[in-house]
Amino acid sequence: MALTIQVNLSTLLQAIEVLGIVAFAMSGFIEARRREMDMVGIFTVGFITAFGGGTLRDLLLDQRPLFWVERQEYVLLIFALALVITPFTRHLSSGRAEKFILVADALGLGLFSVLGTSIAEDAGMPLFVCVMMGVITGIFGGVLRDVLCNEIPLVLRRGQLYATCAFFGCWVALLLDKINAPESLTVSAGIAVTCVMRLLAVRFDLRLPA
Amino acid sequence: MALTIQVNLSTLLQAIEVLGIVAFAMSGFIEARRREMDMVGIFTVGFITAFGGGTLRDLLLDQRPLFWVERQEYVLLIFALALVITPFTRHLSSGRAEKFILVADALGLGLFSVLGTSIAEDAGMPLFVCVMMGVITGIFGGVLRDVLCNEIPLVLRRGQLYATCAFFGCWVALLLDKINAPESLTVSAGIAVTCVMRLLAVRFDLRLPA
Amino acid sequence: MALTIQVNLSTLLQAIEVLGIVAFAMSGFIEARRREMDMVGIFTVGFITAFGGGTLRDLLLDQRPLFWVERQEYVLLIFALALVITPFTRHLSSGRAEKFILVADALGLGLFSVLGTSIAEDAGMPLFVCVMMGVITGIFGGVLRDVLCNEIPLVLRRGQLYATCAFFGCWVALLLDKINAPESLTVSAGIAVTCVMRLLAVRFDLRLPA
Repeated sequence: MALTIQVNLSTLLQAIEVLGIVAFAMSGFIEARRREMDMVGIFTVGFITAFGGGTLRDLLLDQRPLFWVERQEYVLLIFALALVITPFTRHLSSGRAEKFILVADALGLGLFSVLGTSIAEDAGMPLFVCVMMGVITGIFGGVLRDVLCNEIPLVLRRGQLYATCAFFGCWVALLLDKINAPESLTVSAGIAVTCVMRLLAVRFDLRLPA
Repeated sequence: MALTIQVNLSTLLQAIEVLGIVAFAMSGFIEARRREMDMVGIFTVGFITAFGGGTLRDLLLDQRPLFWVERQEYVLLIFALALVITPFTRHLSSGRAEKFILVADALGLGLFSVLGTSIAEDAGMPLFVCVMMGVITGIFGGVLRDVLCNEIPLVLRRGQLYATCAFFGCWVALLLDKINAPESLTVSAGIAVTCVMRLLAVRFDLRLPA
Repeated sequence: MALTIQVNLSTLLQAIEVLGIVAFAMSGFIEARRREMDMVGIFTVGFITAFGGGTLRDLLLDQRPLFWVERQEYVLLIFALALVITPFTRHLSSGRAEKFILVADALGLGLFSVLGTSIAEDAGMPLFVCVMMGVITGIFGGVLRDVLCNEIPLVLRRGQLYATCAFFGCWVALLLDKINAPESLTVSAGIAVTCVMRLLAVRFDLRLPA
């Protein structure tokens, strides 16, 4: 796998990014649907879930233009998804679809967190702040989704490890970068750590002490 | 009406803006009152409802100074309103007052959305992003109001068309601008479409499919 | 006391700042604990409570880097606090600890509000906007804490004076500054007014009319 990544890292990252955005948007659609929102609500919650974390990161780091402003096609993608998928959201929350979303979400969490850390590092932030930015990028969309749906955010409730996985993944990426590992390695290691940890947490129902 | 608008468009827009701000603030006052907040709470929720959308728009587009920072008198207006109106908020939610607020809110929604779109366009954003910025400017104050009052935002719940009206109004303004229609026409057409659609939605209880 | 402040104002302010951050973080820990969050949740809510107000102020005024980005040690302080204190949060909400937090919170409210006002003034904002920025800096962390914990924000609910104390403290600092009082006096007077008013409000259960 390391080989594949070295060969076409950016294509792979692009694919993971699309996967992650789709997964994040889906989780928004499902939650909005559960709350009996109409199509505008479903689109809005999906949009905010997918882009909320990255937007807050860009605001905090004063990066402009915002990443979704530069990639209008992502906004259109979510718009199209909301149109197509809304009638089926009822079925999304069960069985195979849920498993697909879980894996895609874990990949997205890893990618967004590690990218967030790396963008903060490029902006010259101190180490600990880079990790915070990475975790914020990874989890904030879900936090906004839950606040809009009038719930205590899932990632803060006592549940399976989530933000913690992003936290460790970001440290891995950051420390590898400090010892001058090639970018393809730092990014893929960070994503892998986050993603594997998250899937293990779900599989074995790992929790933090309260 | 087109004539009047051409003659003194900016005076008319100014009047609509004041109307819209007052209507948005009022809806905040009423909601805060319903939640038994004290005067500081009532002022704060009114303030955030009136300025939340435009503030988020300016943050996302990196426009400074914020529009309410330049127009201190608007802040004072809401402060004075909160002082004067708080004792009467109990009566605001019934009968004639409610009808006035409904119309003023529809006008404000139209104006804020269309202005948001046009500001995003001047900032060189792509088409679809301009529309998103317009809709955000129009609805986000109300979203914040409901989040602060611990409710699922009204505009996301399955209710009458709201964000959808802003969405169409923004497209109308944007497309008219693309074919080089004069600004007075684009702005007034966008506002009119949003406002009329909204009032029709209320009158005939139009809803989107869930 | 005025003498001490003149002699080493900045050391005193630094101490008050640390006290205030700790108090704000603690209130976040306790609230998160009450909602049965795990350690990541407790840290996150504490972090957002302590830095939310200042972050929003910096975003609104376009000040970069954010103040907590420059002072990485504050982030580490909260991280360490969360690690150490989490097991004891159950006991924090009763008796002596609560009284300590109350006083520290009042000091923090005063400091953050007055600093917020003074930063806005340095950025050339009009008078009323400076006061708003001060109040926002003082109270917004607590608002975010309550929104994340799915409650109507405490400072907006009909309770003891809170935002109102910050409001008056900011005006005192601002007006003293307008008549060219030395900075040590404006800052300490503003903090003292806010803090004393807040403690009196708690002691005598003062409330605003609803």
